[in-house]
Amino acid sequence: MRHLRSIPEIGAEGIVRLLGLARNMAEVNRRPVPKVPALVGRTVVSLFFEDSTRTRLSFETAARRLSADTMTFSVSTSSVNKGESLRDTVETLDAMGAAAFVVRHKSSGVPWQMSAWTDAAIVNAGDGWHQHPTQALLDLYTIHESFGLEPTDSSLSGLRVAVVGDVKHSRVARSEVQALHLLGAEVVLVAPSTLLPPDLTGWPVTVAHSIDDVVDSVDVLYLLRMQRERMNEALVPSMSEYGARFALDARRARALRSRTIVMHPGPMNRGIEMQVDPVTLSGSVIGAQVTNGISVRMAVLFDLLGQPEGGLPS
Amino acid sequence: MRHLRSIPEIGAEGIVRLLGLARNMAEVNRRPVPKVPALVGRTVVSLFFEDSTRTRLSFETAARRLSADTMTFSVSTSSVNKGESLRDTVETLDAMGAAAFVVRHKSSGVPWQMSAWTDAAIVNAGDGWHQHPTQALLDLYTIHESFGLEPTDSSLSGLRVAVVGDVKHSRVARSEVQALHLLGAEVVLVAPSTLLPPDLTGWPVTVAHSIDDVVDSVDVLYLLRMQRERMNEALVPSMSEYGARFALDARRARALRSRTIVMHPGPMNRGIEMQVDPVTLSGSVIGAQVTNGISVRMAVLFDLLGQPEGGLPS
Amino acid sequence: MRHLRSIPEIGAEGIVRLLGLARNMAEVNRRPVPKVPALVGRTVVSLFFEDSTRTRLSFETAARRLSADTMTFSVSTSSVNKGESLRDTVETLDAMGAAAFVVRHKSSGVPWQMSAWTDAAIVNAGDGWHQHPTQALLDLYTIHESFGLEPTDSSLSGLRVAVVGDVKHSRVARSEVQALHLLGAEVVLVAPSTLLPPDLTGWPVTVAHSIDDVVDSVDVLYLLRMQRERMNEALVPSMSEYGARFALDARRARALRSRTIVMHPGPMNRGIEMQVDPVTLSGSVIGAQVTNGISVRMAVLFDLLGQPEGGLPS
Repeated sequence: MRHLRSIPEIGAEGIVRLLGLARNMAEVNRRPVPKVPALVGRTVVSLFFEDSTRTRLSFETAARRLSADTMTFSVSTSSVNKGESLRDTVETLDAMGAAAFVVRHKSSGVPWQMSAWTDAAIVNAGDGWHQHPTQALLDLYTIHESFGLEPTDSSLSGLRVAVVGDVKHSRVARSEVQALHLLGAEVVLVAPSTLLPPDLTGWPVTVAHSIDDVVDSVDVLYLLRMQRERMNEALVPSMSEYGARFALDARRARALRSRTIVMHPGPMNRGIEMQVDPVTLSGSVIGAQVTNGISVRMAVLFDLLGQPEGGLPS
Repeated sequence: MRHLRSIPEIGAEGIVRLLGLARNMAEVNRRPVPKVPALVGRTVVSLFFEDSTRTRLSFETAARRLSADTMTFSVSTSSVNKGESLRDTVETLDAMGAAAFVVRHKSSGVPWQMSAWTDAAIVNAGDGWHQHPTQALLDLYTIHESFGLEPTDSSLSGLRVAVVGDVKHSRVARSEVQALHLLGAEVVLVAPSTLLPPDLTGWPVTVAHSIDDVVDSVDVLYLLRMQRERMNEALVPSMSEYGARFALDARRARALRSRTIVMHPGPMNRGIEMQVDPVTLSGSVIGAQVTNGISVRMAVLFDLLGQPEGGLPS
Repeated sequence: MRHLRSIPEIGAEGIVRLLGLARNMAEVNRRPVPKVPALVGRTVVSLFFEDSTRTRLSFETAARRLSADTMTFSVSTSSVNKGESLRDTVETLDAMGAAAFVVRHKSSGVPWQMSAWTDAAIVNAGDGWHQHPTQALLDLYTIHESFGLEPTDSSLSGLRVAVVGDVKHSRVARSEVQALHLLGAEVVLVAPSTLLPPDLTGWPVTVAHSIDDVVDSVDVLYLLRMQRERMNEALVPSMSEYGARFALDARRARALRSRTIVMHPGPMNRGIEMQVDPVTLSGSVIGAQVTNGISVRMAVLFDLLGQPEGGLPS
């Protein structure tokens, strides 16, 4: 694998390989000293044009557990403010010895542009509304784990997943739906029509317009973050009307089947999409998603940069 | 010790144990390579909701000298901006593997709330006006050192300490007075009545209203930082009137007894509470406070996280 | 060498010694694991009062490759905001164990002030319009490399260098001209008279008023960054008029001799001083400047802090 820019680029085979590798990394992470020397001397650059402390820390923790060096370049403190082009920034960091870039940018496609400018590996940590592949991978890892499947089990056939909320503006939803479909799961989108993509041609999904329609039939209830700053009256009349159909509240939580797991990519909006304390949800795997995020990102960095002489974690 | 949230929670016994441990750490810090492998593989998270570069760097230096990994989460670059709850932030960092949180927050009591949400150790690096226990510990260490006492000497009986300035809004003053009292020192507060707590019941202190009243009788002159941004006319008519009674100037510096030490938690306001160049004060131990801060914070982190297999520094 | 504050302070001898050491460091940087244990246990503090992510990352990468610890103190997140004096900041970081300060400040002379307040080594990473010595050193290293000279070759006699742009406000230009002159190169400044220092007495240079006058006679074309935020009508009528005489465009690029190299300290303004894609310039060594910056800064830190027991990289 040269880059991890999108789920379609790696396909089912890439997903399964990375999930298998993530299992090895999870074993490393359970050790008293959760470190391996696999990437000593390699530099992983976090290039974040949008703030996301969680994602950045998850990648940097993953990099350090593989003994890589990390370099953080965030736009708020950088000369990009002074008009430097993205290309020059990338070329400069490349010339400083970057082995991989972990990039988040508000524009779709930036990771592809970047790979024309550098020989370093590119990891897409979110580009516009487009892709967030490591989120999809950590979610799949968590689903496998929750249902007692091996990470390398390539079939989620028979599994029914509801993705709830603002699908239209969500890179998480796009990556998630593609990854679930590649492994054969069934996906239902649950959203007001204003928050669905205008054209669902090619999306292998069905649609429901209230969480009540799916609450007793799904194996996975995946709540998206409501990005309040993006909402206006044309999209959502009010947060309370939204919540009336699309929030997880106590009543709906009780209606979930006992085997159903609840997921959220974080950060949660309590009182908006999450109207019940997740601690009281027996099916919540939200903490596991975060923990698995470290293992999955270690797997991705190792797959991209691990050299024979670096040594496989054992 | 599970947490370090306040001076009263650890009591005299806890203070003495930590000061003894800090002496071992000071010895480590005098080595050419001031590092021990005690906390390899453990992650210490700095969670700062108020800026304090000094305190954060002191803790992070301490953590690294114990070979811990550090993770910095500062509110200015975090999704807390986007409405994420403190609880979710803590749970997320916990799920990423945090072994300890070093937290600063403008609200009193946050460290106690946090310890209900995570199994990680909590170190209070300042909560509102309430507590700043590591500051009190490093000050005690410095006092012991200055007066030729062993760190483990539990009695400061006979020592007279003046704490000068805005006691009312100061977590440093609260922690300091409690710690000094637990070891038997005598404390006099020197402040305008507007800058004293409205009710001093239970404060084991006496009060003076000018630095001139104590300058020739104290062993320790402890100047608090004047937080100018908090001052208004109801509290202090003007900085020059404040200085007339509560600043250390050249005349008062000359009046200090030769054995008296001068302390300040930093950062100093030269020209406000400090109207003499501290370099000219033979009794200044302000630099020693900073240096000892590293050793004390190493002691705290080691006490909280040190495992038998981690190995005591020797 | 106690400090690296300016080019004149180290002279030709210092330049040559550092370039020779940088060659050893470049060899380290070509290894699979580009690290040496030379500065284990030493702390290098980045003290940046002006943003410069590139320069800071270059120094911090250099420090880490020598196994030093790094501490970043940037004014935007520091209590300097609260009125702490520069002196107290320096003394505090000194008391925390700083072995070297890498400082950038908008005021000329700050590195000299600082060296009166601390025993740590001072590296000037840019003070006002005054000096930026590591930039000059990395440029010289790149020039030597480009023309097949040994780094320790102390004579650039016969080499003709054009420095183009806003010389007046440029610390890079000042350091560069001095360093080139010390090694015997010939320098021509190319700038509108409003962007030249008002008095060129003592500058060992000639002057030209269009890039066209030098484009076919120089060995090195050194473009300075146009700091647009500093420009006004009194200095430059308009960017397009500036570009008409002082930008490198496709026509001028074609007029360069084949041996001529093109340099830029970064970040570039494409469309202003750089009106051609540098990737298409066969003589561009802009990437090499960045790469060599790591080696040169390793050399500087090693020269300042390397102890016999630290071990020379071999």
